[in-house]
Amino acid sequence: MHVHVNAAESVDGKLSTREREQVAISGPEDFDRMDALRAEADGVVVGVGTELADDPSLTVTDAERREQREAEGRPPNPARVVADSRARTPTDAEILGDEAVTYVLVSERAVKGDIEALENAGATVIVAGEDRVDLPGAFEQLEAHGLDSLMVEGGGELVFSLFDAGLVDRLTVYVGSTVIGGREAPTLVDGEGFTDPDSFPELSLTGVERMDDGVVLSYDV
Amino acid sequence: MHVHVNAAESVDGKLSTREREQVAISGPEDFDRMDALRAEADGVVVGVGTELADDPSLTVTDAERREQREAEGRPPNPARVVADSRARTPTDAEILGDEAVTYVLVSERAVKGDIEALENAGATVIVAGEDRVDLPGAFEQLEAHGLDSLMVEGGGELVFSLFDAGLVDRLTVYVGSTVIGGREAPTLVDGEGFTDPDSFPELSLTGVERMDDGVVLSYDV
Ligand SMILES: NC(=O)c1ccc[n+]([C@@H]2O[C@H](COP(=O)([O-])OP(=O)(O)OC[C@H]3O[C@@H](n4cnc5c(N)ncnc54)[C@H](OP(=O)(O)O)[C@@H]3O)[C@@H](O)[C@H]2O)c1
Ligand SMILES: NC(=O)c1ccc[n+]([C@@H]2O[C@H](COP(=O)([O-])OP(=O)(O)OC[C@H]3O[C@@H](n4cnc5c(N)ncnc54)[C@H](OP(=O)(O)O)[C@@H]3O)[C@@H](O)[C@H]2O)c1
Repeated sequence: MHVHVNAAESVDGKLSTREREQVAISGPEDFDRMDALRAEADGVVVGVGTELADDPSLTVTDAERREQREAEGRPPNPARVVADSRARTPTDAEILGDEAVTYVLVSERAVKGDIEALENAGATVIVAGEDRVDLPGAFEQLEAHGLDSLMVEGGGELVFSLFDAGLVDRLTVYVGSTVIGGREAPTLVDGEGFTDPDSFPELSLTGVERMDDGVVLSYDV
Repeated sequence: MHVHVNAAESVDGKLSTREREQVAISGPEDFDRMDALRAEADGVVVGVGTELADDPSLTVTDAERREQREAEGRPPNPARVVADSRARTPTDAEILGDEAVTYVLVSERAVKGDIEALENAGATVIVAGEDRVDLPGAFEQLEAHGLDSLMVEGGGELVFSLFDAGLVDRLTVYVGSTVIGGREAPTLVDGEGFTDPDSFPELSLTGVERMDDGVVLSYDV
């Protein structure tokens, strides 16, 4: 599985404010770049924190990109994937709309009724892990469903687990020319965090590109 | 007063790990860049959080730069300044060494005994503010002592207060090619944080330069 993490952060690494409301960090050029990344991927992934905060549809906006995918024999939109251990995704979430298939990754803590409600709303539920979603196990099951490349859009809790499990292949970050601040605001990589410098993921900077009023940094992991 | 904030962060905006121990984020080129910035400034500023965590001396490392300053009729090292409302700086702190003068900014909460101990250790104590240090007031007093330009090296609590008070003129950040993670790790700008996008400080990206294995982003504020 090829895993690409992409997000927009302020200069101080924040994905949004401490109130966790969606804020526009990037502009139209970066939005288009993200749309192109979605169009390339077999699946677009978010954590349930992002799903609940932003209620995103995670579909490709540009019609030509959707047509191009269909011309290649692919569905017009990539699959949507949400890491949601306890099946908290509401059945009226945008992510369950019928523009694309949706996988909800849950753990054994999800109760049967919630799983069935999600399935009735059209989702394919994948169970992996006892407490939280076991990401390596869940990604293997996604591969069995034919998904070979994932674009992860956040948030920081999910992204930390991916780095911690050594699952990230590529990282691109739009760094907007603003400061959000806040010791409780979500950052690009949250979770427990690494403490031993020897265990910090080593990235290799492959690109620096000015875009909108900011800059896109690209890394191989 | 001209205020320049400079620091080194991971791609996710962290200044160190959640254990708040000093970690090497940048390399020799960036260290030299920082040394040059210190040599330009009239004063180098940190918060007491950084002072207690790292016990930095905040002096200029390069002998030629110190000689150059003296040739210009300036002291070989810039003044050291620590924002320390309750006068918690220990009297054996590196920052009180005799290579440079040291200002400790305290508030009215600092007790007389601690202030006198710092003065006996060679510091000049400046009182401003009731609870926390009133930064605009303290900086005015530093100006009266002949300091016209400050280089602030962190941490995130102090830097937030500076942005919040509209005191920052310039921001440079070395973004190291690593990820630290951790929802409790200190970031470049912490504090309460901004919540209203209209109140986010607007920065203007003036430079993007690759350095060591990372990149230095420069902004006017
Ligand atoms: N600027 C951007 O590009 C951008 C992008 C995305 C998000 N955001 C912002 O980020 C914030 C949300 O981020 P977040 O970090 O709070 O949430 P998140 O990473 O989207 O979701 C975290 C949740 O995912 C679930 N999860 C399931 N398995 C997991 C695993 N193995 N590891 C980690 N999490 C797992 C957990 O809840 P359960 O245990 O209940 O399953 C966890 O609380 C929002 O404010 C959103 O607006 C911004
Ligand atoms: N990578 C880098 O470039 C870099 C640079 C600097 C620091 N760091 C790291 O950052 C961490 C420390 O950062 P930090 O954010 O915890 O501490 P900090 O910003 O250095 O210091 C914060 C403290 O300053 C005092 N202060 C006084 N007046 C203030 C005001 N008006 N506003 C805000 N604070 C005021 C407060 O304590 P009182 O109320 O008691 O006075 C406050 O707790 C350490 O882990 C250090 O290693 C890294």
